[in-house]
Amino acid sequence: VIVALAGGTGAAKLLRGLARATEPSRLFIVGNTGDDLDWWGLRVSPDLDSVAYALAGLLDATRGWGVRDDTFQCLEAMSRLGRETWFRLGDQDLATHLHRTLLLRGGASLTNATRAITDALGVTARLVPMSDEPVRTELRTDKGWLTLEEFFVRERCAPEVFEVAYRGAEDARPAPDVLPAIGAAEAIVVCCSNPVTSIGPILAVPGIVDALGRTAAPVVAVSPIVGGRAVSGPAAKLLAARGLDASPLGVARAYRPWLDALVMDPADAALASDLERDGVRPVIADAFMPDGAGETRLARVVLDAVGVAA
Amino acid sequence: VIVALAGGTGAAKLLRGLARATEPSRLFIVGNTGDDLDWWGLRVSPDLDSVAYALAGLLDATRGWGVRDDTFQCLEAMSRLGRETWFRLGDQDLATHLHRTLLLRGGASLTNATRAITDALGVTARLVPMSDEPVRTELRTDKGWLTLEEFFVRERCAPEVFEVAYRGAEDARPAPDVLPAIGAAEAIVVCCSNPVTSIGPILAVPGIVDALGRTAAPVVAVSPIVGGRAVSGPAAKLLAARGLDASPLGVARAYRPWLDALVMDPADAALASDLERDGVRPVIADAFMPDGAGETRLARVVLDAVGVAA
Repeated sequence: VIVALAGGTGAAKLLRGLARATEPSRLFIVGNTGDDLDWWGLRVSPDLDSVAYALAGLLDATRGWGVRDDTFQCLEAMSRLGRETWFRLGDQDLATHLHRTLLLRGGASLTNATRAITDALGVTARLVPMSDEPVRTELRTDKGWLTLEEFFVRERCAPEVFEVAYRGAEDARPAPDVLPAIGAAEAIVVCCSNPVTSIGPILAVPGIVDALGRTAAPVVAVSPIVGGRAVSGPAAKLLAARGLDASPLGVARAYRPWLDALVMDPADAALASDLERDGVRPVIADAFMPDGAGETRLARVVLDAVGVAA
Repeated sequence: VIVALAGGTGAAKLLRGLARATEPSRLFIVGNTGDDLDWWGLRVSPDLDSVAYALAGLLDATRGWGVRDDTFQCLEAMSRLGRETWFRLGDQDLATHLHRTLLLRGGASLTNATRAITDALGVTARLVPMSDEPVRTELRTDKGWLTLEEFFVRERCAPEVFEVAYRGAEDARPAPDVLPAIGAAEAIVVCCSNPVTSIGPILAVPGIVDALGRTAAPVVAVSPIVGGRAVSGPAAKLLAARGLDASPLGVARAYRPWLDALVMDPADAALASDLERDGVRPVIADAFMPDGAGETRLARVVLDAVGVAA
């Protein structure tokens, strides 16, 4: 089994490539739940859903989140009723949250609710939350403490970020299958997600970093930072808030000491020797995934880097 | 104030006519909540919503329920996720139920949640539930006990009906403003709704029939039965299940002894003398409301019958 640690959009694209480059059923994906939120009374798991939608062929390619060609009729009606609508849920997307909320309220764990959703959508890769218990990423900014979605969506990443907290992480346990999967993995892939807000919450769950340190499987990460800038999103700003370079070096340091190889863009090739000095093998490859072919190509690079035959 | 007792579709049309024929702000509408249900974890009040949508100009004219030109994207996605979808909620309609559910969960009464919805939709008539406490209409049929929506929507009114129960009615209290409104009314209008399943639950709430018996205001009902058949829906079958004639006479008897006048169709003019013998004044008028003009015309007949100047 190939274990992948995953955030949202960027991870979703790489995972879609991995599912194409190998057997989807070989993938065991540990998804970030640090940006989960309760919205309109429903439990929303943005990163789990982006991955599930991508693997089901439903992800909206333009927005990078939600269901392709989704409509926003309910959202417009919520606006008419005076509800906040800065967090945009499409009509089809809403069904996922209604379904999840009903399952959780009926006593299902988030692991089992996620499985019910992926099964219904025909996803054969295994997707699990990092924990069945709530962990919430919050950022201390010049506008006060914000949840990830408040910072990311409502404030459009504009505030300055001084501090990152993973609320509840200390008391959370990894979801039941996570540690066994890491222990049995033939390879570990850290997707090209934000190291601070997408992968950081996963690593904050006690036991996961230990398992990554103990596993004999090679660990490869894909840098979401190219030439000092994030491929998308506020990764650079957030790395800085954690005292890390906004560069592949900073990314590698976020994953020390258990990272073996880092896939980084040719634009950053000059950093390769610094990376090697940090004990991480550089793998130079185009990290952009403009289309399905790009996703599959990057996935092959990743699999090569950990010596896994596609 | 004109107090109207109202079910869903038929009532919504007459109320729209009354709002046009007089000032909407003169209307105090007591809505049936006996078909309320929890669906997809949301609290749905079909009759309150039909009335609110009609008065807001949003009611779908073809279906007779839900929001005009609504889409069903969420419902289709729910079907893909394996959820039951026989009770059809449109995407815009869904917003009303999300909003209501959030308000109720936040501690609001159904009266206040309904007011928030009607205020947001610009409805100036007052719409209140018959009770803030749950009353559920159930029917004993050849398929066992069914809720109203199971019988009406899922089973398309096909089962034989032997018995009608208003669960919870004995312990329910009228919503706070209902009895004062009846006491202060200049007239009472019982809309052309199903006497058993739309008006019956309202009358089953202790105190409401007493207030109707005590009020000095004239009480007029509009027969939903024309020529032995319901204008729409299963009223005839349900009247029979309550041992009442499927005729204006049966309707009048359902509202004895506090009914003063009954608007009935010319097709039933032969029953006028029987009605008078029962102490109810017959008002012969076309009860069909094929369009807005028909709604306003019937509303004027109703207002005339209780001596209210439009």
